[in-house]
Amino acid sequence: MNSYKYATYLFNKIKKLTFSDPGVTRATYGKGENLTHKFLINELKNYTNDIFIDYGGNFLATYMRDKKNKLIIIGSHLDSQKHGGNFDGLAGVIMGICLLKILKEKNIFPKYNIGVMGIRGEESCWFPYSYIGSKIALGLFEKQLLKKLKRSDTGKSLSYHINKSGFNAKAVAAKKTELDCKNIIAFIEPHIEQGPVLENIKIPLGIVTGIRGSFRFRNARCIGKYLHSGATPIDYRQDAVVAVSKLVTDMNNLWKKELKNKKDLTITFGQFYTDNEEHSFAKSSGLVNFCIDVRSNSRKTLHKVKKLFFRQIKKIENITNTKFDLGEETNSEPALMNNKLINKFIVAAKKSKVKSIVMASGAGHDASVFANNDIPSIMLFIRNKHGSHNPKEYMSINHFVEVLKVLETSIINF
Amino acid sequence: MNSYKYATYLFNKIKKLTFSDPGVTRATYGKGENLTHKFLINELKNYTNDIFIDYGGNFLATYMRDKKNKLIIIGSHLDSQKHGGNFDGLAGVIMGICLLKILKEKNIFPKYNIGVMGIRGEESCWFPYSYIGSKIALGLFEKQLLKKLKRSDTGKSLSYHINKSGFNAKAVAAKKTELDCKNIIAFIEPHIEQGPVLENIKIPLGIVTGIRGSFRFRNARCIGKYLHSGATPIDYRQDAVVAVSKLVTDMNNLWKKELKNKKDLTITFGQFYTDNEEHSFAKSSGLVNFCIDVRSNSRKTLHKVKKLFFRQIKKIENITNTKFDLGEETNSEPALMNNKLINKFIVAAKKSKVKSIVMASGAGHDASVFANNDIPSIMLFIRNKHGSHNPKEYMSINHFVEVLKVLETSIINF
Repeated sequence: MNSYKYATYLFNKIKKLTFSDPGVTRATYGKGENLTHKFLINELKNYTNDIFIDYGGNFLATYMRDKKNKLIIIGSHLDSQKHGGNFDGLAGVIMGICLLKILKEKNIFPKYNIGVMGIRGEESCWFPYSYIGSKIALGLFEKQLLKKLKRSDTGKSLSYHINKSGFNAKAVAAKKTELDCKNIIAFIEPHIEQGPVLENIKIPLGIVTGIRGSFRFRNARCIGKYLHSGATPIDYRQDAVVAVSKLVTDMNNLWKKELKNKKDLTITFGQFYTDNEEHSFAKSSGLVNFCIDVRSNSRKTLHKVKKLFFRQIKKIENITNTKFDLGEETNSEPALMNNKLINKFIVAAKKSKVKSIVMASGAGHDASVFANNDIPSIMLFIRNKHGSHNPKEYMSINHFVEVLKVLETSIINF
Repeated sequence: MNSYKYATYLFNKIKKLTFSDPGVTRATYGKGENLTHKFLINELKNYTNDIFIDYGGNFLATYMRDKKNKLIIIGSHLDSQKHGGNFDGLAGVIMGICLLKILKEKNIFPKYNIGVMGIRGEESCWFPYSYIGSKIALGLFEKQLLKKLKRSDTGKSLSYHINKSGFNAKAVAAKKTELDCKNIIAFIEPHIEQGPVLENIKIPLGIVTGIRGSFRFRNARCIGKYLHSGATPIDYRQDAVVAVSKLVTDMNNLWKKELKNKKDLTITFGQFYTDNEEHSFAKSSGLVNFCIDVRSNSRKTLHKVKKLFFRQIKKIENITNTKFDLGEETNSEPALMNNKLINKFIVAAKKSKVKSIVMASGAGHDASVFANNDIPSIMLFIRNKHGSHNPKEYMSINHFVEVLKVLETSIINF
C-alpha cells in the first residue's frame, strides 16, 4: 500500500470510529479520543514495540536504532471539536505513522530515534484550557486545575476523566513525567492550516516561523444608557453601540497601520451584542457585550497594542459618556519556531520539489508548549479548505503526501 | 379643589385603575384603555353634556358657547406601553379636563368652542402601527389594516378588538367620521417630553416646532464569513462586526456634521448583535443583525441622509467584502407645527411668567396626523424625568400646572 492509500485508509478508519453526524467528535478523554488512541497505538505496533503511554494518556511510539540516540518527535493532538473536522490534529499523527511505515519498509534507520506522539486534549472547547496533553507530557500541568476544570458536556472534572479513561491524575498532579526533554532535539508538528492562505495561493506546505501569542477579553461590556432614539439629542446620549463601534473601527485601523509597519498581528471582535431583553429600534443602547482577541508572534507588539487599546477606551469613554468593563483577561505567550529547523525544512522542500512558503501560525498549537520549554520546534502546515473546527474542513491527501515527502527528506538528511 | 389637587386626583385614579406592577398597562382597545376612557368621559360630564364618541372609540367632549363656533381641540392618547408610565399621553387629556374645570368655575366662555379629545391606540407596541386612533378620528384609517394588524398580546385583529370594545370596525373601514376638519382651527397636544432636554435645563415648557419624520430599517443584516481569528489575515476577512461598526461610526460622524450645518437630525442603531449560535471569541463574525432609526423634521435632510447611508454601505461592502441586506423600510412623514400657534404660545408663556423654549419633537405623536391633514397643530412638552415608556417616568404636578397656566392664558386670548 503506498502512502496515499495508507493515509486514506487511516483517516477513513478514524472517521468511522468517531463519526458524529455531521463531522466527528473526539472529546478530550471522551469516547472518540480514547478509541482513536487505542486504534493508532495498535497500528503503530506494526513499526515498533517501543510504545510508551504517560500518566495522562499521551502515547509516544519510538522507532529506534539505539536507545541512547537523541530523539525527534513527530506529533499532534487527537481530540477534535464537537462535530469538528477529521483532519485537525489527526493529520500530524498519521503523517508520523506514515513516515515510520516508509522507514520500516525501506529499512532505513535515521541518525536519530523517531518518536510518533499522540497528544490528548488540545482543543479548549472541552475544558476551558489549552494544551492539557502536551503540558502533562512535559510534566508541567498545574495541580489545582485538575479538579477545577470541568468538561463542557459532562460537568465532571479533568481529574475524573483522566482516571476514568484509565490514567493517573495523581501522578499528573505530582508533575511526574518520564520524558527527558534534554534528549529531544526536535518536536515537529504537521497540522492542517486553519486559515485560507495556502489554499488561496495553491501551495501545499507552510513552514511555520512562530505561533502567535494572544491577549483576550472574552467577556467585556460597555455600559451606557437606554434613551429615546428620537427625543435624545447627541450631547445627552450614552450610546454603547456607538462606543464599541468606534473601538472596533479604531482597532481595525490600528491593525492596518501595524501591518504597514510589517508587524505580525490579528485583531478580532468575534462577538458584539446588545441586550435582547432591552434593546429596541427606538432606543439608543445602554449595554453592549463584546469580546476581543489580539494575536501576534511578538511580545512587544502585543504589549504595544494592549497599551493603545486601553488608551483608546479611555478616550471613547470620554467622548461617548459610557463606561467599559473589560472583565477577566486571558493570555498566551507567543512561541518562536526554531530557526535551524525552519531552514532545514526550506532546504528539504526544495530537494523534494514541493512548493512551500514560510508563514506565522495564527492559531495556537501544542508545538508552542514544546518551544516555550526550550525544545527546538517546528510546524508544517498542510494546505486545507474551509477552515477547521467544522465538518467541511478538507485536506487533499495529495497535499498530505507532498508534505510527507518533505518530512521524509528532512528526517533522512537530519 | 385647585388644579394641582385636581390633576393629582385624576392621575392617581387612573393609575389605580390601570396599575400593573411595575407601572401601568393600557393596551390599545384593552382593559386599561377602556377603563380610562370610561372614567374620564364620566368626569367630563361635570363640564359639558356634549360628549361624542366616534366609530373607533375616541371621545370628544366639547365646552361651547355656540354650536356654530369654530373648534379648538386639546387632546392626546390614553393607551400606554406594557408596564409603561402613567403620564405619557394621559397628561394631555387631563390638562384639557383641568382647563374645562377652570373655565366652568370661572364661568368663562372663550371665543371658540373647546374640545377635549381622548385618543385610542397611539403606541405602536400593541399593533405594529402608529396613530390608529387619530387616523380613525379623521376618517383616514386604511381598511385592509383592520384585519391585518394583530395585537401583540392576544394575536387577535384590530377589527376584533374595536368591535369587542363596543365600537364599529365596519364604519371605521368605510372611513366614516363626523368630525368636520375644516371647523377645527387648532389641535393642541400637551405631552410629557420623552427626552431629557427640559429636565436638564430646568424649564417646564417646550413649545414644539415640528415632529420628526423618520426612515427605519428594523431588520437589517450584514453577511460576512466566520473565519479563524488567529489564522485569517486581514485581506481574507469578511468580518460583519467590522463592517457594521464602520457603518455606525460613519453615520455618527455624518450626524455630527449635519448638526454643525444646523440640520435637525437623530441617527440611532438601537440593536447590533452577532448570532449567538455561531459567534465565538475565536472567529471573525459572519453575521450581524442591526437596525437603524433616522429622524428629522426636514424631508430634505431625511432624503440626503438616506442617500449617503446607501452610498456608505456600498463603500463598506467593497472594503470589507461583506453584503448588506437591509430588509423592509418603514417611514413616517415629518410634521411641521403651525407657526402662528407657536408664536401664540411663546407670547402666552411670557404673559404667564412661565419659562419656555422652542424645540423639535423627536418622538412621533398624534399631532403629526392632524398637522399633516392641514389642521393647524401644536404640541406643548411638559418637563419630565427618566424618559417615557417605563414605570420610572416622572412629571412633577407643579410643572404640569405651570403649562396649564400657559394653556389657559392662550385659550382665553385666542
